[in-house]
Amino acid sequence: MNFSSKLLEDAVAEFAKLPGVGQKTALRLVLHLLNRDKEEVQKFSNAVSKLRNEIQFCQSCHNISDLKVCEICASHKRDHSLICVVEDTRDVMAIENTNQYNGVYHVLGGLISPMDGIGPGDLQVDTLVERLKENGVKEVIFALSATMEGDTTIFYLHKRLKQFAINISTIARGIAFGGELEYVDEITLGRSIVTRVPYENSLS
Amino acid sequence: MNFSSKLLEDAVAEFAKLPGVGQKTALRLVLHLLNRDKEEVQKFSNAVSKLRNEIQFCQSCHNISDLKVCEICASHKRDHSLICVVEDTRDVMAIENTNQYNGVYHVLGGLISPMDGIGPGDLQVDTLVERLKENGVKEVIFALSATMEGDTTIFYLHKRLKQFAINISTIARGIAFGGELEYVDEITLGRSIVTRVPYENSLS
Repeated sequence: MNFSSKLLEDAVAEFAKLPGVGQKTALRLVLHLLNRDKEEVQKFSNAVSKLRNEIQFCQSCHNISDLKVCEICASHKRDHSLICVVEDTRDVMAIENTNQYNGVYHVLGGLISPMDGIGPGDLQVDTLVERLKENGVKEVIFALSATMEGDTTIFYLHKRLKQFAINISTIARGIAFGGELEYVDEITLGRSIVTRVPYENSLS
Repeated sequence: MNFSSKLLEDAVAEFAKLPGVGQKTALRLVLHLLNRDKEEVQKFSNAVSKLRNEIQFCQSCHNISDLKVCEICASHKRDHSLICVVEDTRDVMAIENTNQYNGVYHVLGGLISPMDGIGPGDLQVDTLVERLKENGVKEVIFALSATMEGDTTIFYLHKRLKQFAINISTIARGIAFGGELEYVDEITLGRSIVTRVPYENSLS
């Protein structure tokens, strides 16, 4: 693209670096910003800059937080003997939205993915092991994506964690609520038959 | 959504104000920025802020420019007796990419749209009339979108410009190159029959 202005070109180039944003979308977003008030655009720019420079991560669970210890880890109402291991802060938000979980979290910050050059050393694995060395943790729940990377990460973590006398579980896999049987893939359907649960348990 | 950090929430809220970006996409973009180096994110933030604060518009055609008069308007190789009226800078870029136009431009900065509260006063109409008062302009080409707003704008501009002894034209409408006839809508197809051109002309 031939830009009539270097400033415009720079801004478009920066937006085009975002995931899922191409040159055309970037130009549309930048022209939108140009039509907004200067103060609003400055607010946008400041929010981005402030986020990256001032963001903190909870010392305990490594979730994004404005405090040294996040609200969940600091809460006395949560069950600190139960740790749910997740990939990133989005998963924490998703699980919190269900209102079904009262334990604490451990945010890995990614999944093991040799293809992308991400190994265990890039994730918060050692800090998880340290947390388990302290007394009191009874169960670790893996709530990771049902993908190759998620399965690899669970496999690795399971090997690291089996030295501890704790329960290790993963979230249930099966057909989703509202899912029509004929559209469910074979692997999920097959596994859901093998891992069937007593009818009484499925009601709770 | 329940955010674990105010900084995160603010940044997501700012991104979600962009057109076509919802809360989930905004969160994905923000988490992507968090994984990037501080310097890179600062560059992103600076590019946005600098764009809005330092951007200039060409005094003549009102296209985005880093100079007081843009390269196209300042060029002696362009035909200054031919003015192409467009909506915004994207249209200038699109027409420049065709390499078929050697005149100059006039960027309106929008289209007349009563539904959105945009009237002729919000556009660069008076400055277009001023440009035509100077001698030398022989033709004005309307290259506006083939929408209700585009047609309304052409109708209004035509009324304002017919006082001048100049040719007024619009870009041709019809079926696109590579377009299969059976998929062309009826209005376009019907108009393309009415406004048919001699075969010899269609070859040039």
